[in-house]
Amino acid sequence: MSLADQPPAAALVFQTLLQHGPLSRAEVGRRTGLSPGAVTKVATPLIDDGWIAEVGRPTVERANGRPATLIAVRAERARFIGVKVTGDELIGVLADLTAQPLASRRAALGSRDVGTVVAAIARLVDQLRAAAGAAGPDGIHSIGVAISGDVDGQTGTVQYSPFLDWRRVPLAQLVESATGTPTVIENDVRALTVAEQWFGAGAGLSSFAVVTVGAGIGAGLSIGGRVVSGAHGVAGEIGHLPVGGTDRTCTCGNTGCVEAVASTHAITEQARQATGDPELTMEKAVRLAHAGDPAVRAVFARAGHAMGLALASVANLIGPERIIISGEGVASYDLFADQIRQTFADHAFGAAADCDLVVRPLPFEEWARGGAAVAAQRVFAPLK
Amino acid sequence: MSLADQPPAAALVFQTLLQHGPLSRAEVGRRTGLSPGAVTKVATPLIDDGWIAEVGRPTVERANGRPATLIAVRAERARFIGVKVTGDELIGVLADLTAQPLASRRAALGSRDVGTVVAAIARLVDQLRAAAGAAGPDGIHSIGVAISGDVDGQTGTVQYSPFLDWRRVPLAQLVESATGTPTVIENDVRALTVAEQWFGAGAGLSSFAVVTVGAGIGAGLSIGGRVVSGAHGVAGEIGHLPVGGTDRTCTCGNTGCVEAVASTHAITEQARQATGDPELTMEKAVRLAHAGDPAVRAVFARAGHAMGLALASVANLIGPERIIISGEGVASYDLFADQIRQTFADHAFGAAADCDLVVRPLPFEEWARGGAAVAAQRVFAPLK
Ligand SMILES: [Zn+2]
Ligand SMILES: [Zn+2]
Repeated sequence: MSLADQPPAAALVFQTLLQHGPLSRAEVGRRTGLSPGAVTKVATPLIDDGWIAEVGRPTVERANGRPATLIAVRAERARFIGVKVTGDELIGVLADLTAQPLASRRAALGSRDVGTVVAAIARLVDQLRAAAGAAGPDGIHSIGVAISGDVDGQTGTVQYSPFLDWRRVPLAQLVESATGTPTVIENDVRALTVAEQWFGAGAGLSSFAVVTVGAGIGAGLSIGGRVVSGAHGVAGEIGHLPVGGTDRTCTCGNTGCVEAVASTHAITEQARQATGDPELTMEKAVRLAHAGDPAVRAVFARAGHAMGLALASVANLIGPERIIISGEGVASYDLFADQIRQTFADHAFGAAADCDLVVRPLPFEEWARGGAAVAAQRVFAPLK
Repeated sequence: MSLADQPPAAALVFQTLLQHGPLSRAEVGRRTGLSPGAVTKVATPLIDDGWIAEVGRPTVERANGRPATLIAVRAERARFIGVKVTGDELIGVLADLTAQPLASRRAALGSRDVGTVVAAIARLVDQLRAAAGAAGPDGIHSIGVAISGDVDGQTGTVQYSPFLDWRRVPLAQLVESATGTPTVIENDVRALTVAEQWFGAGAGLSSFAVVTVGAGIGAGLSIGGRVVSGAHGVAGEIGHLPVGGTDRTCTCGNTGCVEAVASTHAITEQARQATGDPELTMEKAVRLAHAGDPAVRAVFARAGHAMGLALASVANLIGPERIIISGEGVASYDLFADQIRQTFADHAFGAAADCDLVVRPLPFEEWARGGAAVAAQRVFAPLK
């Protein structure tokens, strides 16, 4: 069964089952807008080929009182590898069709040049394949690479990644050549948002945002079950919202960006200025703030204020049900939580303030699972 | 044929035809994700009941080389009335099923209390009915009221409208009682966004924003063919993005809002301070700025800067293909256009700067058409 044989309805049905778990055919119809006949027509070849299966005993549908059999994706039908690329490390996860992790590995990156990173991804993929007991390329359906920056998932190109200093890198094709396995790529925060949508704190919500704080500050927006990708590949760039005051310059060259006052680098830099200690580390700054140092606490408060303004901007524009705050930066979240919540409450407009703020420390393995989820999601959705 | 008899697929097919004009059944299938069989099954009763019709001569589908007949909504099948409510005036439009205007009327509002406004809407509806040659309630399918504020379209309630000073007004029900005609309501900027999506500068775009500048500053966001409404009824509140500096207080009670420096009221107030003339009007401020008065020009430049920051925030978060700038304020747009474009270019992140900025003066009749379009769109989509 080739991808080209399948109508778009197959992708719709498959993705609905991936995202919402076991459902009756009638419920799949309600969620996709397909008629019951159309759902059955789409589901039959997917069942024959083992991608989905009927599960459990029939339950009674409330609508018509007749017993209905639930259908669900077969987790064991295919395996995927998700890889999260950071500036100095690769994090890989072997996962089943439902993005449940089966094994994980990390590997340090000696350099950020394209050849080194691609070779390191290929080695990591080999290790995860071995962990899966599948030495050849056949055991893995596809690879999903999650990477920060302006990523064009349709063409598989990293248009621009400031952290890696890459421009126009055809990463999907390079990884595919190096591993012999079909590869898709996605912006890392959007991949994490897909993961949260399927099996995290975004499951079942009509809309939510994932905001990540760390070396960079980014966001993924999920509206109506779809992650917003932007007409020109840029979306969710919350780190460059111009709400941070004008005295500090951002990595993007502008003043006023949230990232220029609230990234881990920016906090460290400001804490060095505040203390006069040019060697101060983030860890030390956190200790000083916990010990009550007023100058360092003011640095965290300012970061929290900028974050609060940025979250209020998201709430006022999109009106999400929930904003999930994550990233390495949340380890010291207690230092700016109060300020974030206070500023958010002050600036969220009307009912937008009802948006739920949730803090979720998520290890990089979760981002890598997002990469695997993106790969699984594309099984029946050929690239345009 | 009652609404309840129709599967959700009927609403999907009907809305696709409303929005995209004549299409082959195969094309409807591609756009909705429905199988060709499902499209035919849905289309047949709609054709039988006169909502859609086959149009023109068969064209050849490129996909399979066979002739395909196009189907389209029948504009004359039903008539709708759209009403835009402002603080001191009602603007009404009689329109066909495709929201093409057949007649329009305006009526001054003596007061903003709910009873007065509802009675005035009923009189305006009667005039438009007479213009349609349809004196009884039967001639109009439904009414769509477009009104500023936090509007819950599902329950038909105006939760909060600062301009009218209304809270929790069941407006749809009140207008329905007063006119004898089914009524839906929607936030006015979202209604205008629906209009732009169907037959304006947003047609055919994957995503766009409509930003309106005037007594208030608002935005409608269209993503993937749907207008974002917010989980709690609030979305597109660009006027309350906290990018405007901290020295002026907004109508919402906050400092820093775009509206506090860039609404027509805020510009007038700042121009009065700048000139020391407490009687200065907006018209006079525009004349002084055109004549080169540096203090008044600085007021417009500051408003333009705040608007540019707000538009860059929309571009960075959503990545729309286009931002359409409209509202009464665009009459003096030349005074802040340069500053808007400069600030936008400075703060849009990477490829987000490729977003197209378009200025469109749209009379209130266009907003009213948006109300009629919202009513037409709901024909086969019963309220949840
Ligand atoms: Zn920046
Ligand atoms: Zn405000």
